[in-house]
Amino acid sequence: MEDHQTFKVHRKGIGKLSVTPLVEVKTKEDLSNVYTPHVAKVSEAIFQDPRLATDYTIAGKMVAVISDGSAVLGLGNIGAQAALPVMEGKAVIFKEFAGVDAFPLCLATQDTEDIIKTIKFVAPNFAAINLEDISAPRCFEIERRLQEDLQIPVMHDDQHGTAIVILAALKGALKLTKKKDIRVVIVGAGAAGLAVARLLLSQKESLSIADLKVVDSKGVICTKRTDLNIYKQEVANNCGQEKGSSMEEALIGADVFIGVSKGGLLTKEMIATMNDNPIIFAMANPIPEIMPQEGLDAGAFIVATGRSDFPNQINNALAYPGVFKGLIEGKLQKATEEVKLAAAQAIYIYHEKSLSRDMLLPSILDKNIPDVIAEAVKATKK
Amino acid sequence: MEDHQTFKVHRKGIGKLSVTPLVEVKTKEDLSNVYTPHVAKVSEAIFQDPRLATDYTIAGKMVAVISDGSAVLGLGNIGAQAALPVMEGKAVIFKEFAGVDAFPLCLATQDTEDIIKTIKFVAPNFAAINLEDISAPRCFEIERRLQEDLQIPVMHDDQHGTAIVILAALKGALKLTKKKDIRVVIVGAGAAGLAVARLLLSQKESLSIADLKVVDSKGVICTKRTDLNIYKQEVANNCGQEKGSSMEEALIGADVFIGVSKGGLLTKEMIATMNDNPIIFAMANPIPEIMPQEGLDAGAFIVATGRSDFPNQINNALAYPGVFKGLIEGKLQKATEEVKLAAAQAIYIYHEKSLSRDMLLPSILDKNIPDVIAEAVKATKK
Repeated sequence: MEDHQTFKVHRKGIGKLSVTPLVEVKTKEDLSNVYTPHVAKVSEAIFQDPRLATDYTIAGKMVAVISDGSAVLGLGNIGAQAALPVMEGKAVIFKEFAGVDAFPLCLATQDTEDIIKTIKFVAPNFAAINLEDISAPRCFEIERRLQEDLQIPVMHDDQHGTAIVILAALKGALKLTKKKDIRVVIVGAGAAGLAVARLLLSQKESLSIADLKVVDSKGVICTKRTDLNIYKQEVANNCGQEKGSSMEEALIGADVFIGVSKGGLLTKEMIATMNDNPIIFAMANPIPEIMPQEGLDAGAFIVATGRSDFPNQINNALAYPGVFKGLIEGKLQKATEEVKLAAAQAIYIYHEKSLSRDMLLPSILDKNIPDVIAEAVKATKK
Repeated sequence: MEDHQTFKVHRKGIGKLSVTPLVEVKTKEDLSNVYTPHVAKVSEAIFQDPRLATDYTIAGKMVAVISDGSAVLGLGNIGAQAALPVMEGKAVIFKEFAGVDAFPLCLATQDTEDIIKTIKFVAPNFAAINLEDISAPRCFEIERRLQEDLQIPVMHDDQHGTAIVILAALKGALKLTKKKDIRVVIVGAGAAGLAVARLLLSQKESLSIADLKVVDSKGVICTKRTDLNIYKQEVANNCGQEKGSSMEEALIGADVFIGVSKGGLLTKEMIATMNDNPIIFAMANPIPEIMPQEGLDAGAFIVATGRSDFPNQINNALAYPGVFKGLIEGKLQKATEEVKLAAAQAIYIYHEKSLSRDMLLPSILDKNIPDVIAEAVKATKK
């Protein structure tokens, strides 16, 4: 297996990141300014006025990409060490796409309290915390409590990065299809599924959503179910009387399928039962819920996936570099609902004139996008 | 105060470090290798065989420079945020001098158990841990327990970096003065003082030490004192019957003064009571125990300080980049006593032919030194 090109990419520099000084140390004077004795003046100034830390230290710009390795890509719970290549990859994208410095920290614990404490203890070194690949429902509590206690933005990208790009893509798809009073089915009720559901529900009117159902492994999430955690209960209120219905039943007559679950789950037959011109977002990685051509053959008007190697990619890498850039440059303390909506809207507007069935979103390699998003995020600042 | 050049140096890039990708992301193929989907192959391989982490991730090369901000330079307990410029400075020196990647982590806790847990949790991202500016006696337990539990080297530089350079400098000074049966007085019984005492005591014979006393704020540390922690007890066994004697008394007839305490503590009058041609290492930062010219005027044969702006600098920045480079490249799991002795000996031998009263050690800017040390460290591997 280790003969794939990706191993060469990872081995060459021992990982994908290096730490580079921004100052030269050629003379004793350089050394005195960078280190002892004069660095003490900077430390002293920050001790007197902690707000100066954002001017004079990496805490003014550095994002921590933090995972416990419990829900990594399609691999699941592989732990800290094995998660590190993914977090390094995110840090590479931060810098390459948005010029944002980021450092990965994979934690050798999956205990909620330990994770929260550890992140609080390392927080003084960072301008923002990007939580990543932490399994649900722990990720919700970890994010909420950190955001309450820290004065820097804390955002779980699997949730909100995904929700932002899906919202932007859905806006595009609805414009193309001119659908109204849509029925949406979200399959998968982990971190991403629940965050997408919450963000779409907050935009029920503007998206003209008549009905939104979230499906987990036991079927549609409904108020009458007794096996729901509080996070699922939050999106269950809207399910009405559907107790016990299955994904297949929920899809009958639906307009939009959003899969953030498992590869191969959606069949041509199910698509055939949906409303005319259905919109299919098959986001499972690396194997989508249905392959694009199959979906189109079954009558889907649009099929999008998370993958780079198919057209119509919906991937949170489009959103997070710009979102964090905006949060940091704007010195915002939280990634609020307003921030997420602004980011999604900015992506949609930027791409509106280029919208097509094959390309609901700008390319992930479009270097303008991070700044477009960052400006929109900064503009939310009161 | 903020008009000093050092503030400009710190402000320009928002801190002194950036994180740089080692791989390009220009095409979708690049992106697939760096991030999803192909990065999953690397994660999977590491999950199957965790030893691969040192080949494919930053855990094969990255040093963590970790402090709790409790004993920073001459500033004392200034906390995590204010300590960050110093730790960034160490990381700059790591890269500039030895090509070693290092990232600072200042922790917002000064609780021993919390510090140990936090470092264990972040350890999967690093090849070695450089503890820094953690106050005694907590630093001893933190270092010992981490080194017991982690499979990567953990070294508290204030202790061992300082001990290494002082041992190397003392060897040089003894060669120049041809002193035998020397009497050594170490003033300061914090992290540095106790580590220096332990390392010198381990070399009692080869250094021809007849007597070594450690002095803390209450006087000479002797077995009869009842106020000693276990770390001070360890160096007290050698003090004999000197109960109650003061620093002044201890210095009468002494050959070597090693100060790792407070500026201005040593007077000309005290030096006059020492043996002929006394050796003075006045290492307090930023104000040494005595100014070099004053010491020489009082009859000292050699005066060295920790400062860049005087001749005869003894600073741990000479040692640590090479020591960590050797530990990592040699894949050593501990910074053993043997490693420290090898490092000190390598510095001494390298500089032996250039030895002078004004220059006991090579310049801190000598770019050969890290490799000289690293090779010696690697050679200790069994």
